This record gives sequence, C-alpha cells and structure tokens, in this order.
Amino acid sequence: MNAIDPPASAQALALAARYGTEPKSSQLPWNDVIASLLEHRSVRGYRPDPVPPGTLETLIAAAQSAATSSNLQTWSVVEVTDPAKRAALAELANNQKHIVECPLFLVWLADVSRNERLAASEGKTLEGLPYFETFLVAAIDAALAAQNAVVAAEALGLSTVYIGALRNDPERIAKMLELPPGAMAVFGLCIGYPKPESAAEVKPRLPQEVVLHRDRYSTTKENDLRATYDARLEEFSKRQEMSAYTWTDRVINRLSTIKALSGRDRLKSIVVGLGFPLR
Amino acid sequence: MNAIDPPASAQALALAARYGTEPKSSQLPWNDVIASLLEHRSVRGYRPDPVPPGTLETLIAAAQSAATSSNLQTWSVVEVTDPAKRAALAELANNQKHIVECPLFLVWLADVSRNERLAASEGKTLEGLPYFETFLVAAIDAALAAQNAVVAAEALGLSTVYIGALRNDPERIAKMLELPPGAMAVFGLCIGYPKPESAAEVKPRLPQEVVLHRDRYSTTKENDLRATYDARLEEFSKRQEMSAYTWTDRVINRLSTIKALSGRDRLKSIVVGLGFPLR
Repeated sequence: MNAIDPPASAQALALAARYGTEPKSSQLPWNDVIASLLEHRSVRGYRPDPVPPGTLETLIAAAQSAATSSNLQTWSVVEVTDPAKRAALAELANNQKHIVECPLFLVWLADVSRNERLAASEGKTLEGLPYFETFLVAAIDAALAAQNAVVAAEALGLSTVYIGALRNDPERIAKMLELPPGAMAVFGLCIGYPKPESAAEVKPRLPQEVVLHRDRYSTTKENDLRATYDARLEEFSKRQEMSAYTWTDRVINRLSTIKALSGRDRLKSIVVGLGFPLR
Repeated sequence: MNAIDPPASAQALALAARYGTEPKSSQLPWNDVIASLLEHRSVRGYRPDPVPPGTLETLIAAAQSAATSSNLQTWSVVEVTDPAKRAALAELANNQKHIVECPLFLVWLADVSRNERLAASEGKTLEGLPYFETFLVAAIDAALAAQNAVVAAEALGLSTVYIGALRNDPERIAKMLELPPGAMAVFGLCIGYPKPESAAEVKPRLPQEVVLHRDRYSTTKENDLRATYDARLEEFSKRQEMSAYTWTDRVINRLSTIKALSGRDRLKSIVVGLGFPLR
C-alpha cells in the first residue's frame, strides 16, 4: 500500500476479509448491523461459561420475528440441556465435541404437527399438508428463524455454528426428543463464547459476480473467478492450518462419494417415515 | 396502566407488539440489532424511489456472510430489472403488484449447477449431488443468505417481503431467467421504501412456550395458548382491516384444500424436472 493512501476504512477491511481482496476504499451503504453480519464466522470450540440470563428468550423472540409463509409458523425449536442427550447428539453428528461443550444448544425442527393438531381439534383435514411444498416451507421457515437467532446471538457477542450433521440420523433424534409425527430436526445450533484458540478468521466467499446475476443466469466469468477464489481459499486454509485445499478440491471431496453424506443418502425415506409424505 | 408505573421500555413495547401482551418491564439481553429484528413486518406496497447506490452489493455481501453447509455455496440470486420479466413474475405469483412496484427484486435460487460445472471441468462426477439432502441444503442455505439480506435491508431503513408464490411456476421462471439444470427459484424478495398506507403493524406470533421446548417436545399448554393467540390475531386482523380471522381459521383456510396451493401440489415433479433428482 502506498504511504499516501488513506487508511482503509472498517468497511473496506470487512469486505476484504469476506472476499479476500486487498482493502480498497468502498462507498457502500453501511452501518454497525451490516458490519456485524460481515464479521460472521462459525466457531467450533466453546468455553463452558453460561450465556446471560434471558438470552434464550431474546433469541427466540428474534427468531419468531422472521417472516413465516402465510403466518403458518411451521417450525419449532428444542433446547437440549440433558448431558446424555447432548452426548448422543454429538456422537451421531460425527463426534462434534462442541455440541457437548457449548452452553446453549438448539435443535431446529420443521414442524407441521402443530397445524395438524389444530385442524384435528376442529374436525378438519388439511389436504395441503402432505405435499413436498409444505415440508419445504417448514424447512425454509426454520432456516429464516434460526438465522435471525444467529444474528441476535452475534450482536450479543456470542458465537455460533450450525450442525447440519443432525440430519445423519433424524429418526434417533425424533425418539430422543419425543417428537410427534410431522416434526423433524433439520439442523442444530451451538451458541456460546469461543475458546481463544477457536476464534476463526472470516472465511472468504466466492466473488459476488459468481453468485449474483442480472435478469438472466450467466456463467461467462465463472471459470476465471473460480480460479481466483481457489487461490484465495487455499491461502486461507493454510493460514487456518487446515489441509491446504482449493474450493474446487473441497467441493469434490464433499460431494463426490455417497459415503461423504454420512447416511444422509437415506434422508428422503427418513423424512417420509417421520410424517412428511412429500407428495 | 397505573399512573405510578414507570413508562414501558422500548424492549417491553417491542415484545408486546410481537407477542400481543401488555407491555411489562423486561430484562432480557437487548441492543439496537435485536430491536431492529423485533420490528420486522412484511410490506406489500412500495414507493417507486430507487434504493441508494451500492445497496445491492451490501445486501449480497451480507447474504454471502451467512453460514453455508461445508462452504458449498449452493445458492445464487438473480436481480430482475426487466419490466416485462417483473410483470410476468407478478402474474404467476397471483398478481402481487408489489413485485412490479418495488425498486429492487431478487429471485433466490437453490443452485447445485455451479458445483456440477466445477466437477465436470475437473472430469469428476459428484455422486452426492442427486440426493434429496443436497437439494434441502441448497434451499436452506438460500434461506439463510436471504435472511441476512433482509436484516441488512431493514437496518438500512428499507422494507421487504418474501414471495413464496414464485414456487407456483418455477419452470416458467427457469425459462425466463435462462437457468441451467440444477438451479431453481425457491422464493423472491421485494425490497424498497413502503408506501405510507402499506406500513403494516408488527404481526403477533404464537407465544414462545408453544414453539420452544426443553429436552423433549411438549404439547401440554398448546391448546390454551392457541386460544389466547387466536384472540390476539383476530384483534390484529380487525385493526389491519383484514377479514377478522383467528389463527386457527387462517391455518385451515390456507392448508385445507389443494386449490389453495396454487399449483404447488406439483412442486416435487417440477423440482425433479429442473435437475434435482431428489434421490
């Protein structure tokens, strides 16, 4: 950087961390909320310190404030405090120890069972309930709600990580948490204070031009920009002492074999078995 | 309220709006970010004023900062500016005029096509790609990203509304936006400044005890709390000059017939046809 250059702004630094480029002056609309969103990183090691009293209630109020399709509210959440249940969840999620460690662990459910109970109590049948669409809405609405909880947690100085590996065995979770038919764990969420050694760097993402299209989908620049991103992610992986993989290698490793799905190749029949016919 | 009572705090008012109870003193962890999340309401009428320059780039940076499963980044987004495309989208979404009106309209895609192109260019096959799990991850990650964009937009003083009705006809959208196989519109998002008459009140949600469980799913209080909520939502509906329905009536109206799905009863076969085998 030239000595006459002005110091990089907080915005320029945040964008540089997320997109892996050199900080340059930026003039995008910006404020503290956006700065907080840009600083997100998933944390996989937690101190035992409890979260402050009332934190769970605040996070759930934030979650319930997210949009929900036709106000159907087809999601629920289970706070898991029981150490035996935490241990079982960690085990089925390929031994992710932070599920046991973190002071607050939430299991987010796609849940049409409440609406079904409501209709039954009125003597009605919900013909629309057994459809693929209804399961998809429930999963999407659970995700919108959970992301609001994540934003709220991070705004309170807490860290988080989603646990998609709960989908390795939703049947076991349904038994463990005594879920009714029509309710299924879609992902977990660890919340707490990071161990100093677990405070990861912000992970670079694909350049905006790769994911953002205008009026029509375009792949014109994709190959060149992927090469740039591969180099950035390899540098990041080395700094984080991960195996030094490019993005290309990581995607191929994650998706090239059925084994890497850790049992989730069975997910469709599991979802059906848990009470979502996916018609 | 008794004259000696202290004035209700901003927190107490926000919680009262969201849960429909009288404001009472609250001592939950709180800050401006959480206040902004609690104030969310969907807006269905927009002024023509453009959003400030750089807004889209800020929103997409926020979206890309959300967690994404194994960093697969299996989502994309299309900004639709073409008036003819906006009109066609509004029409297929049951004539929602705000899709034409709003200054910024985004179509969010579940998108595994990029990862497929990447593998093809390396001469690899992604055995994990055709599974239901992979589609679900793509839809969930699109939702996490979009919700970050919504939080960022609202923090900038903009309003939003999700358009689930894009799922009425994802095939037409795929043609219109020239999507490759393996990319599908999961929902839309209007962003802009509300018309004064469209500035809706915060919508009350189910009491927390209904959606939040501890260690096991419980329905013990559900019926009583639903009755309370039914009364609250009926009051809200009357104030908003909507038909005065309880939550129970609204859920039954929305889900009791296949007709109310507006064609989304075909969604599973459409998703398969667009390149997600849902194995």
